[in-house]
Amino acid sequence: MNESHDLPSASLTTGLVEIFTGDGKGKTSAALGVALRALGYGLRVSIIYFMKGGFPSSEQKVLSQLPNVNLSRFGGMYFIDPNNVEESDKTQAREALKAVRKATTSGKYDVVILDEVNVATAWGLLSTDDVIQLIKDKPKKVELILTGRYADDKLIELADVVTEMKEIKHPYKKGLLSREGIDY
Amino acid sequence: MNESHDLPSASLTTGLVEIFTGDGKGKTSAALGVALRALGYGLRVSIIYFMKGGFPSSEQKVLSQLPNVNLSRFGGMYFIDPNNVEESDKTQAREALKAVRKATTSGKYDVVILDEVNVATAWGLLSTDDVIQLIKDKPKKVELILTGRYADDKLIELADVVTEMKEIKHPYKKGLLSREGIDY
Repeated sequence: MNESHDLPSASLTTGLVEIFTGDGKGKTSAALGVALRALGYGLRVSIIYFMKGGFPSSEQKVLSQLPNVNLSRFGGMYFIDPNNVEESDKTQAREALKAVRKATTSGKYDVVILDEVNVATAWGLLSTDDVIQLIKDKPKKVELILTGRYADDKLIELADVVTEMKEIKHPYKKGLLSREGIDY
Repeated sequence: MNESHDLPSASLTTGLVEIFTGDGKGKTSAALGVALRALGYGLRVSIIYFMKGGFPSSEQKVLSQLPNVNLSRFGGMYFIDPNNVEESDKTQAREALKAVRKATTSGKYDVVILDEVNVATAWGLLSTDDVIQLIKDKPKKVELILTGRYADDKLIELADVVTEMKEIKHPYKKGLLSREGIDY
């Protein structure tokens, strides 16, 4: 972390559990936007990627230059085939969950983002019960943000804020590919 | 703009028109997340607020420390009463639209965010036709991102990517207020 920036310092009174799910765009983007706002307010943010940790990430290049934010990336380079999950994928997702627990209990972070944890759970890389236990154990002041399609009903039940990103129109259907710097 | 950061340089081949709308959370946040990613990829970003430009904005404190991004804020401190729109509100929204046109045609920006433009249009601060004309006139390489509830059907028709943020669960209904640093 770079400490040379001039940002305020603050903390949350009540940290909620937020979920961004659905088939539309903007789930990880929304979590990153909240991270940016939190940093500007003086909160400390930990972003933990549960999948595709080896995939290029444009946001990392900016966030690594900012104070009070830490990124930890787990998982490989590519999308996982949900019908052919490998043991190494499960190990990576479990390591990510351990990293979240460490971040939430360390007292070092006010906002912890669990990127793509919903997909990791839906595809059986993690048990939903382990994620539920982590949420129940979290310190009151820590905000958790869970992203990814297929959010489990039990997680939705437990969360305070749930937003479904619903695809109304998508350019990939017109043959346009995902674009680096915008979509990932 | 601070030029001391070490970010790559890039440009878009095709800039699309994206809309984040709906009653759920994460519309402005998603646009800010795309901005962050774009900056990390080396794109230049202009963020223009159509309303509530006088309202505190935590994200501004971080973004003002980054290179390649400019924020312009229009409108007053408070929410506008849609049944009692004042001439000054219209003037501010029109100034914002002018700023967008300048940003898109200047060649200085790859991504231009029109924050809350959908609401400004829905409440009659701007004519939808003026926004449509701006979209039609935009250089091909410039990406436009329009946020806010109540996106006009004609804008949805024109856009390439449309995501509806749908409220599944919202803490304000439980009596929790909007929190600085997270929600704004």
